[in-house]
Amino acid sequence: MMPQIDNPLGFLLNPKSVAVVGASNGVGKVGYSVMNNIVQSGYSGRVFPINPKSPEVFGFPAFKSVVDVPEDVELVVVCVPARFVVGTMKQCAEKKVRGVVIITAGFKEVSEEGAELEKQIQAIAKEANIRVVGPNCLGVITPFLNASFASRHPKRGHIAMVSQSGAMMTAVLDWAATCNVGFSNFVSIGNKADVDEVDLIDLLADDPETNIILLYLESVEDGEKFLKVVSKATSKKPVIILKSGTSNAGAAAAASHTGALAGSDTSFTLAFERSGVIRATTMNDLFDMARIFDQAVVPKGENFAIITNAGGPGIVATDAFENNGLGLTHFTPSIEKELIANLPAEAATHNPVDIIGDAPPARYKTALEIAFKDDIDVCAGALVLVTPQSQTEPAEVARMLVDVQEKYPERMIVGCFMGGISMTEPAEILAGTTVPMYQFPEPAINSIKYACAYNKIKAAVPLHEQVMPTISYDKEAVTAVFDSVKAEDRKILLAYETAAIFTALGVDCPGTKLAKSPKEAGEKAAEIGFPVVMKIVSPEIMHKSDCGGVVLFVKSAEQAEGVYTQIMEACAERGPKGANLVGVEIQEMVDFKAKAKNSEIILGINKDAQWGHMVMFGQGGIYANYTEDVSFQLAHKYTAELARAQLKQTKINTILEGVRGEPRSDIDSVVDVMTRLAQLVNDFPEITELDMNPLLVFAEGEGYSAVDVKITIE
Amino acid sequence: MMPQIDNPLGFLLNPKSVAVVGASNGVGKVGYSVMNNIVQSGYSGRVFPINPKSPEVFGFPAFKSVVDVPEDVELVVVCVPARFVVGTMKQCAEKKVRGVVIITAGFKEVSEEGAELEKQIQAIAKEANIRVVGPNCLGVITPFLNASFASRHPKRGHIAMVSQSGAMMTAVLDWAATCNVGFSNFVSIGNKADVDEVDLIDLLADDPETNIILLYLESVEDGEKFLKVVSKATSKKPVIILKSGTSNAGAAAAASHTGALAGSDTSFTLAFERSGVIRATTMNDLFDMARIFDQAVVPKGENFAIITNAGGPGIVATDAFENNGLGLTHFTPSIEKELIANLPAEAATHNPVDIIGDAPPARYKTALEIAFKDDIDVCAGALVLVTPQSQTEPAEVARMLVDVQEKYPERMIVGCFMGGISMTEPAEILAGTTVPMYQFPEPAINSIKYACAYNKIKAAVPLHEQVMPTISYDKEAVTAVFDSVKAEDRKILLAYETAAIFTALGVDCPGTKLAKSPKEAGEKAAEIGFPVVMKIVSPEIMHKSDCGGVVLFVKSAEQAEGVYTQIMEACAERGPKGANLVGVEIQEMVDFKAKAKNSEIILGINKDAQWGHMVMFGQGGIYANYTEDVSFQLAHKYTAELARAQLKQTKINTILEGVRGEPRSDIDSVVDVMTRLAQLVNDFPEITELDMNPLLVFAEGEGYSAVDVKITIE
Repeated sequence: MMPQIDNPLGFLLNPKSVAVVGASNGVGKVGYSVMNNIVQSGYSGRVFPINPKSPEVFGFPAFKSVVDVPEDVELVVVCVPARFVVGTMKQCAEKKVRGVVIITAGFKEVSEEGAELEKQIQAIAKEANIRVVGPNCLGVITPFLNASFASRHPKRGHIAMVSQSGAMMTAVLDWAATCNVGFSNFVSIGNKADVDEVDLIDLLADDPETNIILLYLESVEDGEKFLKVVSKATSKKPVIILKSGTSNAGAAAAASHTGALAGSDTSFTLAFERSGVIRATTMNDLFDMARIFDQAVVPKGENFAIITNAGGPGIVATDAFENNGLGLTHFTPSIEKELIANLPAEAATHNPVDIIGDAPPARYKTALEIAFKDDIDVCAGALVLVTPQSQTEPAEVARMLVDVQEKYPERMIVGCFMGGISMTEPAEILAGTTVPMYQFPEPAINSIKYACAYNKIKAAVPLHEQVMPTISYDKEAVTAVFDSVKAEDRKILLAYETAAIFTALGVDCPGTKLAKSPKEAGEKAAEIGFPVVMKIVSPEIMHKSDCGGVVLFVKSAEQAEGVYTQIMEACAERGPKGANLVGVEIQEMVDFKAKAKNSEIILGINKDAQWGHMVMFGQGGIYANYTEDVSFQLAHKYTAELARAQLKQTKINTILEGVRGEPRSDIDSVVDVMTRLAQLVNDFPEITELDMNPLLVFAEGEGYSAVDVKITIE
Repeated sequence: MMPQIDNPLGFLLNPKSVAVVGASNGVGKVGYSVMNNIVQSGYSGRVFPINPKSPEVFGFPAFKSVVDVPEDVELVVVCVPARFVVGTMKQCAEKKVRGVVIITAGFKEVSEEGAELEKQIQAIAKEANIRVVGPNCLGVITPFLNASFASRHPKRGHIAMVSQSGAMMTAVLDWAATCNVGFSNFVSIGNKADVDEVDLIDLLADDPETNIILLYLESVEDGEKFLKVVSKATSKKPVIILKSGTSNAGAAAAASHTGALAGSDTSFTLAFERSGVIRATTMNDLFDMARIFDQAVVPKGENFAIITNAGGPGIVATDAFENNGLGLTHFTPSIEKELIANLPAEAATHNPVDIIGDAPPARYKTALEIAFKDDIDVCAGALVLVTPQSQTEPAEVARMLVDVQEKYPERMIVGCFMGGISMTEPAEILAGTTVPMYQFPEPAINSIKYACAYNKIKAAVPLHEQVMPTISYDKEAVTAVFDSVKAEDRKILLAYETAAIFTALGVDCPGTKLAKSPKEAGEKAAEIGFPVVMKIVSPEIMHKSDCGGVVLFVKSAEQAEGVYTQIMEACAERGPKGANLVGVEIQEMVDFKAKAKNSEIILGINKDAQWGHMVMFGQGGIYANYTEDVSFQLAHKYTAELARAQLKQTKINTILEGVRGEPRSDIDSVVDVMTRLAQLVNDFPEITELDMNPLLVFAEGEGYSAVDVKITIE
């Protein structure tokens, strides 16, 4: 028996008792498969088949209903048709069971009625405090209990797999049977009526049997919960997610599949990154990574040696190391000398170390042991390439790798045995060791990259422990503006309103005031200081210039009074019929041509349905949509550091940093604005869009000017 | 016996006789392996072992030397140590053999002396008209003869593999032994002292046994020959190349490996594209593609159906189709109705067609046959996804696919059997059929993409048949300028020289004349028309403004005279000591602010050591190096069409096309300049660099102005 896991779902991995509703002696029925799997898995708890027609199932006395079971029932597995499931749930509630795994399909994934049934199930579960896995799932497999209808049992190991698709789970089980990979848990989550991926990640992070968590997901149920919880798991063990529905067509297919509303792919990437999740891009990728995290020694550096018995694969591997951003060991001269002294004259002792085609296992050993004399930060490990040449003894090389690994337990050793038929024996030898084996160099190196990336995840402060520094500003003033906009039932703020918000937020923008009469125009223009720009204020007028609603370079109070009348008249005549002409805004004119440097950037916020607000930074100006030089980050726990990282992802950043002898731009002030915007949308979730384009950035110390800003609220 | 192949290297695939220099009865020796392979391969020609110490080898009478063989010898395989190879070559020359395969290593790949030996071999071969494969290679395997020291014989099939790395070849042979893939030829080309990849591509294109040619290359020996010859092969059959040494470190490793000088990767991509070669990016990629080209029906369209028994993999596949730029079939309404009528209610009949988890083989058949009722351009074929669920019979599904394929021979059917242990039987069933099988959706779809891409290659006019339209211009004038520059032993042209060249070439640039006295300055300025710009002309002065060498807005002849003196004095004082002040150039001032639209682009030419001149197009201006919005194309057989395609690869193109109500830019004239530049460098290969930045492009019909141009020659 395993120790009790301190997690709300801990009981799921090893319940004291299991009832199977729909248990059957009839081969081919789901209720048969489930019973058979429970028995075959050597489950040591109490088993209660529920079947109104049979007195016994699989030799266990059967009961007509869950409520008839004379003992406590901790977990119930449901295999009866969809129309009976609500009834079963009511019985489970009456019996006070802790959890229900609903294998049955036919709910929200097929129809409106199904969705309705699923809602009833959710309501009963909530009321009775029952945790529900499924419906529409394959079940749950743990080291102690196989409560699924899968036809294969995984070999025991330390990989947990959670899948939104039952079929993906069967495919993985089938694949695992051929490749010496062991699993701790398999959970198929189906429609996620209650238990979702976050609950399971949290559970499996607490499971001592699990070292690595793989997920196949089509959607994430609750972005906020994900961001709150998942980093707790990723700071303990690697969590790797293959998220499908990344394309438009794929998202549509996913929506019809489990009724999932897929979020935008960029935001998923960001959310996974921030939570410390490693994202797999293909199925191969997922399994390649599983292998390295399951087996390999954690690398203590990012520079590796390549030991090869052939030049060609060495070059392929060298390309892959560089293309994956990993380093190749530059051997210390004394070490390279030792390699030269101990290897044949034809060998290449520079990295990649080519020990040439006739290399026996001992020569691999020599090369590896000399390489590992170098410091671990110079040589964190080795990729050992083996091609089947006439003198090669792949099985002996594999055994040698295990020996060397034992002697150098801190160095990561990854084997790449290229070929097929000669490489099955090495595969068996290396299974279960700390030396993972690959068939080709590229997937091996891709996986090494992720192993190194996970080190960074472990070293970083996890998201759930991060604190967003509070920026204080005049929140009341902002609230007041939003209130007045909402009172008028508008969604888009007028320029003087955005100006008021930015002023309150501590973001510089040209002084802007609203005038409602010629006299007021003259007064307010004088307050701002000349010259000023004057623009019509009207929610109905989008293109102000087109109807004579903008006048630049107004130079005196007297002129301002005249321009007021001119604008109001022009807009009344040329604007949309019945447009509400609120007045004229008076704006400070920024003389940006006088600045030492002047770059146009774009800052923005938009709101993702799943992951909340995202901060955008990029190259601005009228062509911003065409240059597409932008980067995004979630506003959740946003910091100046994240802002700076966003800048570095763009090409405009190089220009802001100062090229061709130009001064550096005022990057600090841009970062300041970005953090203030994030603070604003964290405080005011009703903001759906915010757009500053262009934000003119001047030379260091000279600030910026937000000349054109739009804010939209819900 | 195969028919004689009409190719200079035809004899290599089935020589009438083979002598093995270094043939041996000693197990473990290379000369033993080669003899053994020749015998095992059932070679039907004459075999002559050459061994001065044994009277017979493998039962064949042995000879002391090639010259001692009493009959004609067509091919000689050499396995003796490097120091004996030159002697052997001399004997081969005396014997007048046609070809020599030198397996022996120890030439240019190891040392200067080796390189010297290799040069001697080349000289003898050239003199005696002997074709040489190798040295430093594994040998040659054909359907009729295994003249290699590889330890495995490939299954007979129709894939030819050419490898610059012998070990890569052994790995592929080993891999092939496990996965039901057959090969026609295997050629290891080693150091390519004579026979290179282009010779072999040309030979294999003529080989009736070969349907597809795979290559592993670290370098290309002769770019010009490649561009001239390879498209002949690619218009006959697919040629797929994995080119390593793509990274900086990889290129360095390749250089130390076979002494290959790797060219820039971009130019390789372009050269492969232009020649109709498909480029594999990883080893997996190479083999995945080999499978589809070897087996599958050529797709007659680019829209495919997905038939799946599980939603999850269907979504993964949908993503992959979209991400690979392929189309998914939108079924004709009548077809979709038929799918609905014939599939269970829970099935998804939209593409992907999810025939759900309990699908027996017959349901796959139903879905496929209905899908194939749609027109072939709507549904060119199907990806069939099989996950191992309880009712699934993978082997039966595989057999059914073969049946359906027979009935619909024009539709491409690709199987994706997800899993491991349950999928070995289907793999055996589908081997050798026209239904290739993959384990995961992504590589299957990636391969389908290449199958579709090859259709476009076949449909296009192959490079060797393309004719570059001749643009006539005043070539003599250009020659005269270059001659005078060369006479002065300069490499960088002065502005009035580039202006003369562009004028001769028919490219507009601001009128520029050289003045060597104040008086001449006044006269030439008047000829050009005012205002003019005046700039110092001096090969030693790079930054003209910095030493007072530039004056703008010169408005009269009188002023021009004064400015001449002013510039000459300023540069004499502030320029580099001893700078040669040739004179002052007088340039027309372009009033580009008066133009309706004005975009800065960059055009350039640079010369790749391997592939010759490349034309560059991109976003110009002072930040061109930072925006990196550029595209390249080989100048070889350059056309306006290629120029337009180059434009479309950049972001600036959208802006040139006209956005935000702006007029379209004068794209035609940009294309005209690009073709003229290509013509120029084709005629004057001594040009190493040409840079126009910015080229100001105005609105359609208003042309452009090449305000700043640099030309460098060898």
